[in-house]
Amino acid sequence: MLASFPVRTGSRTSLVDVTRDVEAAVRELGIRNGAALIFVPHTTAAVTINESADPDVARDIDSKLSELVPDSASFRHAEGNSDAHVKSSMIGCSETVLVEDGRLVLGTWQGIFFCEFDGPRSRTVYVGEVGGGG
Amino acid sequence: MLASFPVRTGSRTSLVDVTRDVEAAVRELGIRNGAALIFVPHTTAAVTINESADPDVARDIDSKLSELVPDSASFRHAEGNSDAHVKSSMIGCSETVLVEDGRLVLGTWQGIFFCEFDGPRSRTVYVGEVGGGG
Amino acid sequence: MLASFPVRTGSRTSLVDVTRDVEAAVRELGIRNGAALIFVPHTTAAVTINESADPDVARDIDSKLSELVPDSASFRHAEGNSDAHVKSSMIGCSETVLVEDGRLVLGTWQGIFFCEFDGPRSRTVYVGEVGGGG
Repeated sequence: MLASFPVRTGSRTSLVDVTRDVEAAVRELGIRNGAALIFVPHTTAAVTINESADPDVARDIDSKLSELVPDSASFRHAEGNSDAHVKSSMIGCSETVLVEDGRLVLGTWQGIFFCEFDGPRSRTVYVGEVGGGG
Repeated sequence: MLASFPVRTGSRTSLVDVTRDVEAAVRELGIRNGAALIFVPHTTAAVTINESADPDVARDIDSKLSELVPDSASFRHAEGNSDAHVKSSMIGCSETVLVEDGRLVLGTWQGIFFCEFDGPRSRTVYVGEVGGGG
Repeated sequence: MLASFPVRTGSRTSLVDVTRDVEAAVRELGIRNGAALIFVPHTTAAVTINESADPDVARDIDSKLSELVPDSASFRHAEGNSDAHVKSSMIGCSETVLVEDGRLVLGTWQGIFFCEFDGPRSRTVYVGEVGGGG
């Protein structure tokens, strides 16, 4: 069984906190104890877990990645968005989070972020159960 | 239960599309609904999910990683392949993919790539079931 | 069900081999066949799988990451540890490892490393079952 939710991004690159959406998907799937896979079915986006308290952390991650992997004329891929593909593989298109008593097991400061690297676009995130301890 | 398949790489670095091999392993394991872990048991290789339609995307990822992490004399590890170890940790040695009705749940453009960072070599990839919803 | 173990790190950045701790957690959880998620509930740390035979490999990974993502005055986040947050997202806060007959399925040279990027600190690592094949 699979749940999904939409993400609308507003600029070429940004990190969007989707922790609440993932929590809603976990409830929808009825996962009580086990784990959830958050999977991004796009090749110019990613998902990461990092600090959600100070939004400057997400901005720093976004801008540092763009400094390391700038949009460059030396890429071969004709669509001109290879920087986004590289970032997608560096950050990764999935995260797995444990679930206990229906709640995500996250650290105090952790949130789940959709990473847009080639927006603005309408995106989709999948959530599925992995591990069915109960 | 565990399935595996071989990958023969042809140069020092390359990304090899192994989506078909993963699909075959998922059939062999009899996974109908749940998820599969693709695990690379090597420390100078990795696995990533990215665009499989245009092979230039994989080439751009490969060459950008080599630009970020060049083979360098300043590494301490005596075997002289620390660049490959660093890339392996940056990309990661596993991916988890949801399975629905026996099919991998991937986005339209996504394929699964074995990442060779210290070839050419004969490599192995493991596939195992994670999550047994049914 | 969830197990956890502490990690005490001794410097600002370091990679600590926690393979034995993960093995002990897998035994504690009674996982015989399936998979284990190793999850770091911190936003300035990570977990990776890489070579454990030669400790210089971990040192090379640590120093190359610091070269790519140095502590920089240009970050906005006021705590001054954005480099650690960026590295955390680049390496990732979880790894999934298959378990067969109660043993971690790792390659010959692979070990599991806790990655400290903003120490020294007292840290915690969670281990949970994902996939309950039996």
